[in-house]
Amino acid sequence: MEDQLGDQQRGENGGAEGKGDISADGSIRGFESLHRLLEANLKPQIFQEVSRLLLGLNCGRPLERLALPEPAASLAAKHDFDLQAFCFHADKELLRQPRIVRVGLIQNSISLPTTAHFADQKKAIVQKVKPMIDAAGASGVNVLCLQEAWMMPFAFCTREKRWCEFAEPIDGESTQFLQDLARKYNMVIVNSILERDVNHGEIIWNTAVIIGNYGNIIGIHRKNHIPRVGDFNESTYYMEGNTGHPVFETAYGKIAVNICYGRHHPLNWLAFGLNGAEIVFNPSATVGELSEPMWPIEARNAAIANSYFVGSINRVGTEVFPNPFTSGDGKPQHSDFGHFYGSSHFSAPDASCTPSLSRYRDGLMISDMDLNLCRQIKDKWGFRMTARYELYAAMLSEYLKPDFSPQVIVDPMLHKKP
Amino acid sequence: MEDQLGDQQRGENGGAEGKGDISADGSIRGFESLHRLLEANLKPQIFQEVSRLLLGLNCGRPLERLALPEPAASLAAKHDFDLQAFCFHADKELLRQPRIVRVGLIQNSISLPTTAHFADQKKAIVQKVKPMIDAAGASGVNVLCLQEAWMMPFAFCTREKRWCEFAEPIDGESTQFLQDLARKYNMVIVNSILERDVNHGEIIWNTAVIIGNYGNIIGIHRKNHIPRVGDFNESTYYMEGNTGHPVFETAYGKIAVNICYGRHHPLNWLAFGLNGAEIVFNPSATVGELSEPMWPIEARNAAIANSYFVGSINRVGTEVFPNPFTSGDGKPQHSDFGHFYGSSHFSAPDASCTPSLSRYRDGLMISDMDLNLCRQIKDKWGFRMTARYELYAAMLSEYLKPDFSPQVIVDPMLHKKP
Repeated sequence: MEDQLGDQQRGENGGAEGKGDISADGSIRGFESLHRLLEANLKPQIFQEVSRLLLGLNCGRPLERLALPEPAASLAAKHDFDLQAFCFHADKELLRQPRIVRVGLIQNSISLPTTAHFADQKKAIVQKVKPMIDAAGASGVNVLCLQEAWMMPFAFCTREKRWCEFAEPIDGESTQFLQDLARKYNMVIVNSILERDVNHGEIIWNTAVIIGNYGNIIGIHRKNHIPRVGDFNESTYYMEGNTGHPVFETAYGKIAVNICYGRHHPLNWLAFGLNGAEIVFNPSATVGELSEPMWPIEARNAAIANSYFVGSINRVGTEVFPNPFTSGDGKPQHSDFGHFYGSSHFSAPDASCTPSLSRYRDGLMISDMDLNLCRQIKDKWGFRMTARYELYAAMLSEYLKPDFSPQVIVDPMLHKKP
Repeated sequence: MEDQLGDQQRGENGGAEGKGDISADGSIRGFESLHRLLEANLKPQIFQEVSRLLLGLNCGRPLERLALPEPAASLAAKHDFDLQAFCFHADKELLRQPRIVRVGLIQNSISLPTTAHFADQKKAIVQKVKPMIDAAGASGVNVLCLQEAWMMPFAFCTREKRWCEFAEPIDGESTQFLQDLARKYNMVIVNSILERDVNHGEIIWNTAVIIGNYGNIIGIHRKNHIPRVGDFNESTYYMEGNTGHPVFETAYGKIAVNICYGRHHPLNWLAFGLNGAEIVFNPSATVGELSEPMWPIEARNAAIANSYFVGSINRVGTEVFPNPFTSGDGKPQHSDFGHFYGSSHFSAPDASCTPSLSRYRDGLMISDMDLNLCRQIKDKWGFRMTARYELYAAMLSEYLKPDFSPQVIVDPMLHKKP
């Protein structure tokens, strides 16, 4: 924990330069993102090539930075959040106009200590997120997604049920707050909440509420896959979702939401694709030691395999809870969940991606994307057409049987003596 | 093509240092791998951190280089192939011994021009691959995989059927050659061939033959997914495989083979996993402009999602054919397939991976891996247990129906005027 707080401090103090400090033991700490660390330490020409490789820009489509209107930059400077904006391109078509939408992702830390009154904690988070939504609105963002359970600390590590007080109905406090902003900015907003299902015995879900650009609620999706790993004791609080894999046809394209741990399940990504998604958001809360090596891989793979855009969001900072808890790893009790490493970014169907937002600071990531690219990549690679789903429908049906027998060919020489 | 030959030359002349040359237009060419480019251009401490991030070593398991016996290094120096060796670790268990196997991947260019007599072409490739197999044998490699259709040029870009002469039966020339070496080195060898199925009307398949460490043929797997993209006109030559997703239980663990384009299909990877694979090889032939951004992503994602090791192999060099052909991209006729960028590497279930072999030179990649890591990661992350396969079996069955209706929730405000 000392270490994580140290990380946080470094981020707050000197992280904006993103260069990384060499600490006493020779390791590099406090860099904002891999991209910025490389940018600060490589010659420009070498950086350009490395960046091209890491962002998957081999296909000849350069990644462009997007110029944002002045109010967005002012808000970022005033409220100290990371603001980055990029642009994905598609080919021009003869029979379809480009379908360029501007999409935004917001990552944030909590604002008050977790010991503060719950009502004050919510209010403080809303206050810090509001300027970021305003910056998105001022930038003309069409579709905006917030991080998983953004209006509360990610308290599921504690296994204490009192945090269920943060749960709210579909049309609760956070939805109402965002409905106003959706109307104001003519913006679709994905609101990720801890849901209390009052019509079904007060049960708890992990839910995304899709708010249309008129402020209307288009529908919901409930998290399909619930982790039981590390401090992610979410199965203590809510069960697997019962809403399938809905795709929401909005004014700005067909969107879906793969909540957090669902990103580890290729079939979950696939199902949203089969239902026609063009952008899939992955609002998450995940910590460094556990998942950071997977973070740049899974979203990009999903975008490639399913020919759609992915917007990945992770919260930032270290959240310390009032009562210490153990983590099932034999280590002493402690009071924090580890460092949420931010690093929100976009992935595209052509295997390119944007750099990531800061590992330490709140941030707004914006990207323009021509949704025509999805079909163009489908036509080019033909993954849907070559997928042989009939094989896998049959195999999964077999696999589900308790007496499933795997297709194993045993070397007959295996048990012979030499 | 000039460009690609230029690349090749740079690789041959100065690439071994891997530093990358800055060419007249300011771009960097001729570097051996991203890893070596970074190593040559970053301060050691920064490189260490960048390397840790790129290789996914956040989980606290450092990637170690493996010391190989002298004969292997001598062979690499004498025959000018890239030789790299690493070591993946697992936790110690109380009730199981470590199951450490040493696994090898070979990548190679062709040897003679494609205009040479076919028999001479095969002989010359065998001659250049033999010292690499000997180096693997001298290093105590237990399981070795060769690249896709290693004993022929990847001529499928031409759509000329005369290249079918390279096809051979399961127990043909290349298998016989490798059976001797399997016996000699007590090594399992995966032999990837263009197969002529003499018992079924002389039809052609793309097939992996699994040779046991006694030189016996354990079984075969035929490529499941056939590309129709770029110059990959493989569907002109062979059809989708009919051998399912077999896992081969060998003296050194349960292995499977996902051939080339099958790596773009998460369900293909999944099926090998459901059948119990611990190592899945992906012998490939793929070129830079088309797939290089995807190459570092898909294999690692498969290893993560399925809790097994992946060994990825791609051939190297530019293959020029006697008759020019067009590529369906409106560009003028040309005679080569583009640059096969090598970059063979291993991925592990804990999201770590090795650096890659050269983008230009033949190479042998070796890694020790404790297969116990597969089950340890399954127990930790529980992806199999949280996968809800019943949802996806049902969905795929529905999707296969011609009248499938995607789960789409349309914003009722969509067609209202503001």
